[in-house]
Amino acid sequence: MVTQKRRRPTIHDVAAASGVSRGTVSRFLNGGHNVSPGAAKAIQKAVKDTGYVVNQHARSLVTSRSHSVAFILAEPQERLFEDPNFNVLLHGATRALAEHDIMLLLTIAGNIDDRKRVSRYITSGHVDGALLVSSHSGDPLIEELRGQDIPVVTIGRPLGHEGDVPYVVSDDREGARQMTRYLMDRGGRKIATITGALDTSGGVDRLQGFREVAGHGAPVAEGDYTLAGGRAAMERLLAAHPDLDAVFVASDLMASGALIALRESGRRVPEDVAVGGFDDSPVAMSTAPKLTTMRQPWTQLSRELVRLLLAVIDGAEPSAIMLPTQLVVRDSA
Amino acid sequence: MVTQKRRRPTIHDVAAASGVSRGTVSRFLNGGHNVSPGAAKAIQKAVKDTGYVVNQHARSLVTSRSHSVAFILAEPQERLFEDPNFNVLLHGATRALAEHDIMLLLTIAGNIDDRKRVSRYITSGHVDGALLVSSHSGDPLIEELRGQDIPVVTIGRPLGHEGDVPYVVSDDREGARQMTRYLMDRGGRKIATITGALDTSGGVDRLQGFREVAGHGAPVAEGDYTLAGGRAAMERLLAAHPDLDAVFVASDLMASGALIALRESGRRVPEDVAVGGFDDSPVAMSTAPKLTTMRQPWTQLSRELVRLLLAVIDGAEPSAIMLPTQLVVRDSA
Repeated sequence: MVTQKRRRPTIHDVAAASGVSRGTVSRFLNGGHNVSPGAAKAIQKAVKDTGYVVNQHARSLVTSRSHSVAFILAEPQERLFEDPNFNVLLHGATRALAEHDIMLLLTIAGNIDDRKRVSRYITSGHVDGALLVSSHSGDPLIEELRGQDIPVVTIGRPLGHEGDVPYVVSDDREGARQMTRYLMDRGGRKIATITGALDTSGGVDRLQGFREVAGHGAPVAEGDYTLAGGRAAMERLLAAHPDLDAVFVASDLMASGALIALRESGRRVPEDVAVGGFDDSPVAMSTAPKLTTMRQPWTQLSRELVRLLLAVIDGAEPSAIMLPTQLVVRDSA
Repeated sequence: MVTQKRRRPTIHDVAAASGVSRGTVSRFLNGGHNVSPGAAKAIQKAVKDTGYVVNQHARSLVTSRSHSVAFILAEPQERLFEDPNFNVLLHGATRALAEHDIMLLLTIAGNIDDRKRVSRYITSGHVDGALLVSSHSGDPLIEELRGQDIPVVTIGRPLGHEGDVPYVVSDDREGARQMTRYLMDRGGRKIATITGALDTSGGVDRLQGFREVAGHGAPVAEGDYTLAGGRAAMERLLAAHPDLDAVFVASDLMASGALIALRESGRRVPEDVAVGGFDDSPVAMSTAPKLTTMRQPWTQLSRELVRLLLAVIDGAEPSAIMLPTQLVVRDSA
């Protein structure tokens, strides 16, 4: 026998039914500050009509505030230690939250069971909000947290949720355009790209920026943000296009893998093939040659991430922030 | 004006006053299963006499269980990413907890403010228990968590709390003895050691094991478990004892630093100086030459850590588990 599971009405349904904003509904439910009598009446009616039930247990915790925020890494644990971007971001977020006396809890949602546990914990009111890092499109977590009115901010555009989930992101498209133009200006005639995972905004947007400058016929190899993935993608590119002389790699960690493949093929960097990365992560300084890359403003990204989350916890409407990247010229191009 | 802060009575005081075990008091407070009528009466009286107050908010959460455990790293965040031991331990604990459908929350208590936030969060009942990793003697966190009856298990002997805080540890002393004997048996005549931090049980116990075999006159340089610390300690040893021909380094990460100092001094490893490490962490395979080391049983350590914590959460008495290490011979000695 199959029973249809009825969706629990959410704060969004109440907002829609009452014709006021989600922020106003949130303020009303949290004590009614700055809510007009008319809006209050509409909300009360909408709560009744939709059958919205405030999770009292969660509410009591939220009202008293746990002074904690979950940093949810939607990746296998290995990725946390492989890619120094996460270290930098974690550090920045921890420090930015500390300024508000809020603790960061790191949770790793690398597989479906982990994700269920994370969702259960967070929707039980143990944290005031969540930073969702490295979210892939189709990730059910974002839907679950939204359904339970958990304040969430993502780093990177939450594909498919751009309108209703606040986010902080670097200007990936413009950064990719700038790097591609730089590689071509310094002599690249046959340029290719290695993309990030194409179910993330960084993957999609950096590829689009590359194509806008290099053209839609330029060779593309799909990567996955890992060192091994970058190396394998470079090998595929070299096999198919042995004459390429420049490559834009959509993350520094992948670029370090691409450098290995280039060295093994006997090519010199930058003389035979120029390599441009993206991130300016600590990896960029540890490769030989050092990476020319696009700097993401990590400190500012972390700070904005925290600022936005605290605003949403206080009932603000979702908004998005995009920060510019910056070309850093070193030795690989 | 100085006001004397009165210590809140704890479950330990109730146990002492009633003359029954802490586990029995815990079971009584959690619903009275397996508590004799006589014990129950004694506990009720002791609760009244001591003025013990059950934290009802925390209690309601604990009784309903949050199905989560905090993994508290009492180190600056950099250490998490520098030393692969933490990655291995975190991974093992996450998987062992997952088998019980329990989520792991990583919290970093690297400075006094972080520690206060962690303590506040955990004593508010948001987690069922805590794994305390890399605890240094004098750490106030352990005292605070104990005072609030939070189930805690440490990895490494909790110096000063061996009797009342359960822990899981490798047999550091015997492991150090075995490595020192191995280095001397293969020809080391002038042997030295680089210790771990001497406010940790690994630091103290490995030094003691070394001295039991090499004698109390053998040179000792104090390290701090970091690569830079191992390198600096090796430089100090070489300056004071240029003729040394073997060194036992109390962690693989420090040993990788010692190898750098030896190379820079023009010495060959193992021909001029034999180097033995401790851990068998991923570092041991990435050095040149590869490290001869003592293997800590990481998987088993994680599993026992989790088993012990779950037992304590269920009201078991504190106990300790010590696991043997194993000599792994590679190229550095």
